[in-house]
Amino acid sequence: MERGLMNADDAARSAARVMARCDALAEISETAGQLTRVYLSPEHMRANARVGEWMRAAGMQVWQDEVGNICGRYEAARPGAPAILLGSHLDTVRNAGRYDGMLGVLTAIEVVQWLHQQQRRLPLAVEIVGFGDEEGTRFGITLLGSRGITGQWPESWPSHPDGNSITVAQAMQDVGLDAALIGLAARQQEAIVAYLELHIEQGPCLEQANLPLGVVTAINGARRLSCVFTGEAGHAGTVPMTQRKDALAAAAEWMVYIEQRTQQLDPQLVATVGTLSCAPGAVNVIPGEVNLTLDVRGPQDQPLAALLSDLLTQAEAIALRRGISFSADEYYRIAATACDPRLQQAFSAAVTQVQGASMLLPSGAGHDAIAIAERWPVGMLFVRCDRGISHHPAESVRETDVASAIQAYLHTVQHLATVP
Amino acid sequence: MERGLMNADDAARSAARVMARCDALAEISETAGQLTRVYLSPEHMRANARVGEWMRAAGMQVWQDEVGNICGRYEAARPGAPAILLGSHLDTVRNAGRYDGMLGVLTAIEVVQWLHQQQRRLPLAVEIVGFGDEEGTRFGITLLGSRGITGQWPESWPSHPDGNSITVAQAMQDVGLDAALIGLAARQQEAIVAYLELHIEQGPCLEQANLPLGVVTAINGARRLSCVFTGEAGHAGTVPMTQRKDALAAAAEWMVYIEQRTQQLDPQLVATVGTLSCAPGAVNVIPGEVNLTLDVRGPQDQPLAALLSDLLTQAEAIALRRGISFSADEYYRIAATACDPRLQQAFSAAVTQVQGASMLLPSGAGHDAIAIAERWPVGMLFVRCDRGISHHPAESVRETDVASAIQAYLHTVQHLATVP
Repeated sequence: MERGLMNADDAARSAARVMARCDALAEISETAGQLTRVYLSPEHMRANARVGEWMRAAGMQVWQDEVGNICGRYEAARPGAPAILLGSHLDTVRNAGRYDGMLGVLTAIEVVQWLHQQQRRLPLAVEIVGFGDEEGTRFGITLLGSRGITGQWPESWPSHPDGNSITVAQAMQDVGLDAALIGLAARQQEAIVAYLELHIEQGPCLEQANLPLGVVTAINGARRLSCVFTGEAGHAGTVPMTQRKDALAAAAEWMVYIEQRTQQLDPQLVATVGTLSCAPGAVNVIPGEVNLTLDVRGPQDQPLAALLSDLLTQAEAIALRRGISFSADEYYRIAATACDPRLQQAFSAAVTQVQGASMLLPSGAGHDAIAIAERWPVGMLFVRCDRGISHHPAESVRETDVASAIQAYLHTVQHLATVP
Repeated sequence: MERGLMNADDAARSAARVMARCDALAEISETAGQLTRVYLSPEHMRANARVGEWMRAAGMQVWQDEVGNICGRYEAARPGAPAILLGSHLDTVRNAGRYDGMLGVLTAIEVVQWLHQQQRRLPLAVEIVGFGDEEGTRFGITLLGSRGITGQWPESWPSHPDGNSITVAQAMQDVGLDAALIGLAARQQEAIVAYLELHIEQGPCLEQANLPLGVVTAINGARRLSCVFTGEAGHAGTVPMTQRKDALAAAAEWMVYIEQRTQQLDPQLVATVGTLSCAPGAVNVIPGEVNLTLDVRGPQDQPLAALLSDLLTQAEAIALRRGISFSADEYYRIAATACDPRLQQAFSAAVTQVQGASMLLPSGAGHDAIAIAERWPVGMLFVRCDRGISHHPAESVRETDVASAIQAYLHTVQHLATVP
């Protein structure tokens, strides 16, 4: 066996430990029988403590930073060297699955654990961070953990309230943190050379390709729009089909176009109408107004913008032809986050070594890497999950896939921490 | 001038009186500044009293029947002869227009008023009924007035509650009626030879044709279905377009087909999706389930059934192709009501005489004539209304159209009451 490669037995043992630890963390929940663990809750602190123990057992120096991230450092051959940062999040949505976020933290610990057992020190340090908030479940604002590391908390965040009117600052104080000190969580630019994140895919592509692992090319940019077709309500019995200004019929025509056009333009683009409501909304009244949302995503901003522009032009054309009106209001926009080519390459080489082939795919969901990418190069490794289900208790991964993932992860980290 | 024809001056005076009386009745409302008058309310009784006075002034014998209809009889040349019954309703929806129903009662009074002034008695009596309930606003059950005349109250109706848990029987008692006596409102088959109803169109067809009056061929039959597409909810970012089971995309495809196919098959058929809701219903979640209603109507039952079957077959095909499921539950069905050919002919002749041309059209909305048609031949005359708007304070008719309508109505009644 090549020096620095984890053998199958070690990988299997590591994977079994990761699965058991995912189960153990899933018990740390505010709701019995379900997994819900939100930022700055007692459960957050308990999870941090548990993960901190595991980091310490893997030979790491451990601390909780000023925004509540649990952090560990496995020192480099030369103490004080810059680090490769590995991470993901430990918070969850309500009634969550047990792998979203946690799998990335726990597999990273296995990588370090193996180095520690082999008594290997690398030219770069390896650090791990378990972010306190990625999902935004408690405060409705997201990526609080990773934006602590990048030093990008807006001034408004400490006074932002949760559903019970408890502010972030108050919640911090309740768990022994001090909002005045959050700036100290920010890391020096030169202290970190790259960020890697392993995560479940949360989509069906790897399963469809029959591959355990895939390398992320980019985290999709997204736009969200609130749209309205305004026609004319009318009596469902008395207005002939040709004389209607049916807002729902217009919306239907547009939705068919959205689906067809998006498929046609680029297989990496997606567009979704997730909500729709009709007014007046009675069985015997022609809808006079339809409100609907449009969510479009893609790994590159330009094609995404082009798709959106095409869709909106078509909506206008449909409305014009039908003698009704259309308006759209973009209320959310996040740019696409490209993964660093060198990090993609390193992951790809390792993935190919482990499973015989690599697969490149964009990430449809958001991740901590979005925030980190504003300061450091980021790379992401996806692990297949059952039917793409996530944010649901049925979220599931195979232990053998986790074993492959740990092997590829370790290989990548060693490569990146060694080559100049 | 042909004997028995109302001249233009008389018609104008009659129309002005009808408009003023519509305004006067619109003041009899439970809500100030809006028109809402429901069955068995104090306002119902006040409207009956007022209309009864007008009938009396037109030379009629007047009574309120056992279900609360206000009735008048203008005796035939030979007392006790069978009658032509003219009618419409005096109840309203909430925040109603002032012509829906009332126009038919008040124009009928003008017909009799003219005969009375001319001291003409016809071979048949002319009776007028102002029905107490057509809309079903108070009790949610409809046509209580006309079904009183036909003797078709189901046993359950007297105990049916309104929104305040007051039963029909209690409400009757509150206005001095006795639910035990409702059977007495039923008319003998041989006492009535035909039923005529004048009503605003509540649709845009006459306005489009630039004609004040039209003759109804049939009152559309209707079917209402509650439909469900069940696909699979999914992450709007991670599931590629080709791997989705988007229930809303399926519904959109179906709605486009519904509109196109209905137009294509028969200009007298209409199909409406009036309500639609998505679950889970979040901007970033692919809809897993869509519930929608379908309302289809047409003047003949067979083409309507054929349309519905075609639409449902297509829904199944769309669902099958997309790997999702579809189901539909028909929860309401009313057969089409054909208007009597001889009565249509009589109305058509009169309408042609008045406006130079006749127009035949189906009624998209329901009317008292639906109930009456189960016992007697029915005919209906439509009067154009502004932009087809009804069930709304903006409901409006032109006084000159009303003058034409009264002339045609009188002509028709005299013709039918005279020829054998």
